[in-house]
Amino acid sequence: MRLRHLGERRVISRIRRAFGEKRADVLLGIGDDAALVRGPARLLLTTDILVEDEDFRLADHPPRLLGRKALNVNLSDIAAMGGRPLHALVGMALPGDVEEGWLRQFMAGFRSAAREAGVALVGGDLSQADEIMIAVTVTGEAQSPVARSGARPGDAIFVSGTLGDAAGGLRLLEKGGIHGVVKPVRPLLEAFLDPKPRLKLGALLGRRRLASAMIDLSDGLSVDLAHICEESGVGAEVEAGRIPISEALARFARDPLDMALNGGEDSELLFTVRPAALAAVARLAARYSLSRTGRITPGRRIRLAGPGNKTRPLRAGGFEHFSK
Amino acid sequence: MRLRHLGERRVISRIRRAFGEKRADVLLGIGDDAALVRGPARLLLTTDILVEDEDFRLADHPPRLLGRKALNVNLSDIAAMGGRPLHALVGMALPGDVEEGWLRQFMAGFRSAAREAGVALVGGDLSQADEIMIAVTVTGEAQSPVARSGARPGDAIFVSGTLGDAAGGLRLLEKGGIHGVVKPVRPLLEAFLDPKPRLKLGALLGRRRLASAMIDLSDGLSVDLAHICEESGVGAEVEAGRIPISEALARFARDPLDMALNGGEDSELLFTVRPAALAAVARLAARYSLSRTGRITPGRRIRLAGPGNKTRPLRAGGFEHFSK
Repeated sequence: MRLRHLGERRVISRIRRAFGEKRADVLLGIGDDAALVRGPARLLLTTDILVEDEDFRLADHPPRLLGRKALNVNLSDIAAMGGRPLHALVGMALPGDVEEGWLRQFMAGFRSAAREAGVALVGGDLSQADEIMIAVTVTGEAQSPVARSGARPGDAIFVSGTLGDAAGGLRLLEKGGIHGVVKPVRPLLEAFLDPKPRLKLGALLGRRRLASAMIDLSDGLSVDLAHICEESGVGAEVEAGRIPISEALARFARDPLDMALNGGEDSELLFTVRPAALAAVARLAARYSLSRTGRITPGRRIRLAGPGNKTRPLRAGGFEHFSK
Repeated sequence: MRLRHLGERRVISRIRRAFGEKRADVLLGIGDDAALVRGPARLLLTTDILVEDEDFRLADHPPRLLGRKALNVNLSDIAAMGGRPLHALVGMALPGDVEEGWLRQFMAGFRSAAREAGVALVGGDLSQADEIMIAVTVTGEAQSPVARSGARPGDAIFVSGTLGDAAGGLRLLEKGGIHGVVKPVRPLLEAFLDPKPRLKLGALLGRRRLASAMIDLSDGLSVDLAHICEESGVGAEVEAGRIPISEALARFARDPLDMALNGGEDSELLFTVRPAALAAVARLAARYSLSRTGRITPGRRIRLAGPGNKTRPLRAGGFEHFSK
């Protein structure tokens, strides 16, 4: 059955049933004018929107994974604050010809990601549009929040995981769609279709005050490092040879370093570390796959040091909306 | 200049400058991965989406008023909980050919409504789409929240303001657009284009515990009263002759009562009052233009009593997404 035949109220009542769990901090969930929850004293708020054909393609993105991603891109922002996610609201504008099964799978994916992260869906809104638009808002708490503005000259720069994989996955989809992808490059697809927020790592760095500044790599290293430098009033030097690149990306991409620097959509964390905290972070490196990739410098320039230690300016070449 | 030539970061930095006021409870506003605010212990959360050609038409809706409405429809939900609004996040998907001036006016309207209500814009997201979509999320606090589920048989039913005006305004726009509208019916246009949330009334009813159940009339009396009855497990009887209808609607509409019952989008409150609180509410009636329109009954039926006290079932005939 298509949504236009199902009706808004029946859609909402199905969502409500699917998320009908009780939780002590949710005093009023879906079904009133607003949700009422027990809020933390230090409240995090973030919102992200996903638009069909701009942020995902319907044919390429399995609805279950899209539901997970719609929540997880927000959870990555909470991770980047060193926070713990609490509640979610989901606004959706859907074409009337969307199949009921698509929405059911989308919500099942959303629910699976919510359960993994301990997030309660407490409200939302539904409307109609010619293309699918999904707006998710997430609350969280941060007892020792990590802003973008805390980096100082002398801090080391770390990243988690490998970079450029999501951009590689997107390129694969653009080239040939989701089918017939060979096994060695599947991690790239997964990084784009089903990104995993680094909640444990972010919370740990926050709680133990190991990160002086932090951001998630949703825009790519070049852009996100520029955000840290701008907010902190510092410069940076990144060593090209230390950028972590996966085997899959090295195998698939013509210029893996460019994708790692400029690709964007990596659900990884970029953070800076004071010299005094270096030893503690080094002990976490293997477990959380952390790479030390450079250092914060005085001044405002951001440079990339290549082979033979030659440096060149690192310019933001990442994804930009409205630039098409 | 059009947005596609302006670039996302410049758009965001302009919004940030426009909303760059400091407020003690906003620890980190626009410009980090998430906003960090001092949250209340009893936190309200609500979200609403507006979609071009579904919820508004670009040619008919002055951008300044659309910016006000995008926030105010959420504030109406906070009012209906008896709450006080605190923070807002705005997600927007915009076509690249939108003019910079349109966005500036939209944000100016949003800001004017935010200032009137004491709301701080703390974050958001921007993406691109073929049609405009606006997703606003608002937080609030409610020390004595009013749910939909508290109505009991014997409670009186009240509404604020006059009903059906927004639907009348929408009908006017559909007929002939915003131009050449004669003065007597302008209140209808205003009700649709620039609805005013009943924040003072909602907060007062909450604080003084005068309302046993409350909802805003965004779906129309027939639908919203059904929500109250469903959540409270009760029925209701509404007196047709006591539904408040404006002079403008009476003058313009062929069937004003139908619009008042089924129109929707009225930024007014529907609430129920225990017999013991009736005298206190009556004293507020003139100041807040309150009308006593019926009573809560046992059972689950919702009836409309017309002339000669003949009753008929009041069925939800309001606006439904996906029903087109």
